[in-house]
Amino acid sequence: MLYEISEKAIQLQNQGKEIIKFNLGDPDLPTPPAIVEAAYEAMKQGKTKYSSAAGEKALREELAVIHGVSADNVVVTTGSKWAVFSSLFLLLKRGENVVVPSPHWTSYELAAKKLGVETRFLKSDLGSNWKVDPEKLEALIDDNTRLIILNSPNNPTSKVIDSKTFAEIVQIAQSKGVTVLSDEVYSDISFVKADSILDYGKSNILVSGFSKAFLMTGWRIGYVVVEKELAKRMIKLNQITTTCVPAFIQYGALKGLETRKQIADDIRRTFKLRADAAYSVLSKSKMQFSRPDAPFYLFPKVDGLDSERFALDLLDRGVAVAPGTAFGDYREYFRIALTVGEDKIKEGLEKLCEALP
Amino acid sequence: MLYEISEKAIQLQNQGKEIIKFNLGDPDLPTPPAIVEAAYEAMKQGKTKYSSAAGEKALREELAVIHGVSADNVVVTTGSKWAVFSSLFLLLKRGENVVVPSPHWTSYELAAKKLGVETRFLKSDLGSNWKVDPEKLEALIDDNTRLIILNSPNNPTSKVIDSKTFAEIVQIAQSKGVTVLSDEVYSDISFVKADSILDYGKSNILVSGFSKAFLMTGWRIGYVVVEKELAKRMIKLNQITTTCVPAFIQYGALKGLETRKQIADDIRRTFKLRADAAYSVLSKSKMQFSRPDAPFYLFPKVDGLDSERFALDLLDRGVAVAPGTAFGDYREYFRIALTVGEDKIKEGLEKLCEALP
Repeated sequence: MLYEISEKAIQLQNQGKEIIKFNLGDPDLPTPPAIVEAAYEAMKQGKTKYSSAAGEKALREELAVIHGVSADNVVVTTGSKWAVFSSLFLLLKRGENVVVPSPHWTSYELAAKKLGVETRFLKSDLGSNWKVDPEKLEALIDDNTRLIILNSPNNPTSKVIDSKTFAEIVQIAQSKGVTVLSDEVYSDISFVKADSILDYGKSNILVSGFSKAFLMTGWRIGYVVVEKELAKRMIKLNQITTTCVPAFIQYGALKGLETRKQIADDIRRTFKLRADAAYSVLSKSKMQFSRPDAPFYLFPKVDGLDSERFALDLLDRGVAVAPGTAFGDYREYFRIALTVGEDKIKEGLEKLCEALP
Repeated sequence: MLYEISEKAIQLQNQGKEIIKFNLGDPDLPTPPAIVEAAYEAMKQGKTKYSSAAGEKALREELAVIHGVSADNVVVTTGSKWAVFSSLFLLLKRGENVVVPSPHWTSYELAAKKLGVETRFLKSDLGSNWKVDPEKLEALIDDNTRLIILNSPNNPTSKVIDSKTFAEIVQIAQSKGVTVLSDEVYSDISFVKADSILDYGKSNILVSGFSKAFLMTGWRIGYVVVEKELAKRMIKLNQITTTCVPAFIQYGALKGLETRKQIADDIRRTFKLRADAAYSVLSKSKMQFSRPDAPFYLFPKVDGLDSERFALDLLDRGVAVAPGTAFGDYREYFRIALTVGEDKIKEGLEKLCEALP
């Protein structure tokens, strides 16, 4: 349904219709020019040959410093999505299962399904301010559970898991011998401090990337921080699949790390203003929603709404959103990605409010 | 062993030792500047966002024209290696098998093994000028065979499969209901005309890429030409794994296609001279070998040689080659990649001849 909306939005645009696109998690802001220039310089310097399947040494070392680990713990991946897929591929066998708090990013479920792995969802809801319940999570774990996937800040709710809950989940995982994969791609730009899985030792999997925090969605560069043995297995899998992330892209990313805090501050400031602008419109409507802890999403609820139908109808009014069903069992919800300017946010959300049943 | 040699060569270089590297299939020539500039322009124009998992429309259309198919038959992939891996992933189940003429590119075997798929090798040898025997190939096919992987021109022999043999193999595959995956990454720069699987209809899999014919090894861009149904499945797999090839890389590749014949002619001319230079040294030695039909490799034989030991010893003399065991059951052989200039080729091969037992 997410792809159907996306395709229809593009079709309408191609017909000359203006569509305000709240449907994709792809920020409108350009990649910082310093990153583009660094990638170009690297190309001209011949960084266009096969590179290491582990990642360029300089980038691994810099990421190791940032995360307080050794470079041997870092593997650069073709986007954070490939990091998730290869973790599932290496750690789970057909018939085993992974536990995922929901609402959740669609790719976890699709990757697991493709690998013959069962996904067990732990439903959370707006009523509890999207609190993940460790007791319920524990009850989902059985002998075939190999992995728990956390995503804090979360896509689509933009909520952060509080420290107490995070610690309890890690504790449960540890006691059950289950690995935690923590997808932290929104952490660097979070409005509030978000715990990292690395705060709880190095025996789990940190997944992160440059897409969101460096406005590099289309560059396809992410990374994992894992134990050395798993790092070696991931490197070997890269060798027979993606080979490497282009070295010149890695030098672009490395340049980004130099001004990491500045870039994150800029993104945070821009998206805080956008969230406030959205809040001022939505709070006048009958929608229920929670204040986001991070960019880029709002995930409001309208009692009795069929969000798939609503999303399709809304397209005809020139606004694209993602129906809640794309993120689990959330038919009354929809996701708004604040990836357009403030004026367009107001205009789009006003149209959206008018369209509410 | 290939990786061991490669790592040791890099270590020696880091110690300040000069190593003539014949061990990797990564040409020394730079990516044509027009491709670099086109990629840079695309970056500056904002082609840095998520792109289609199928590939950019303009690139798919241009490749479709070149191959005489529809754009719907073309899927752009994160290197031709990912095209091979995803074909195996989608078409074979654990316990099924793939037939591969040998010597062969290591990745076919490693990818199959990782997926629990058996690889059945059809051995060929220098004595028959590396002829692939269709009768023997047919004898290897059983009820669990799903795929035959052809690679003409071949890595490591640089030999082309003659038209009669190619036709016979396709005929056998068809009669047995087995798909042919034809890896044609060296075809555009072949010294002699090489058949394409597309000469025999569109029901099989063409794998190709920009690495070799456009000197873009580190850019990670390849593609497949397949039936529309399989194309859709590959696009879906891209959506949950690699997402897309960065759009700016695709615009670099598209620029390359504009001067495709010119770039291929230049590569062919350079590597023909190198092959001749190598031939003049090697023909004075006791090595047996066949004249290459294509860049970049020679695959000579020395009776009684232990090529693994030889490759390691040779490194201490400042020359790196790939032992034949990396390409199948070929201990008396080794692969020489002519990816250095003519002078270095002569110097390296003379050292190599001196080192022969």
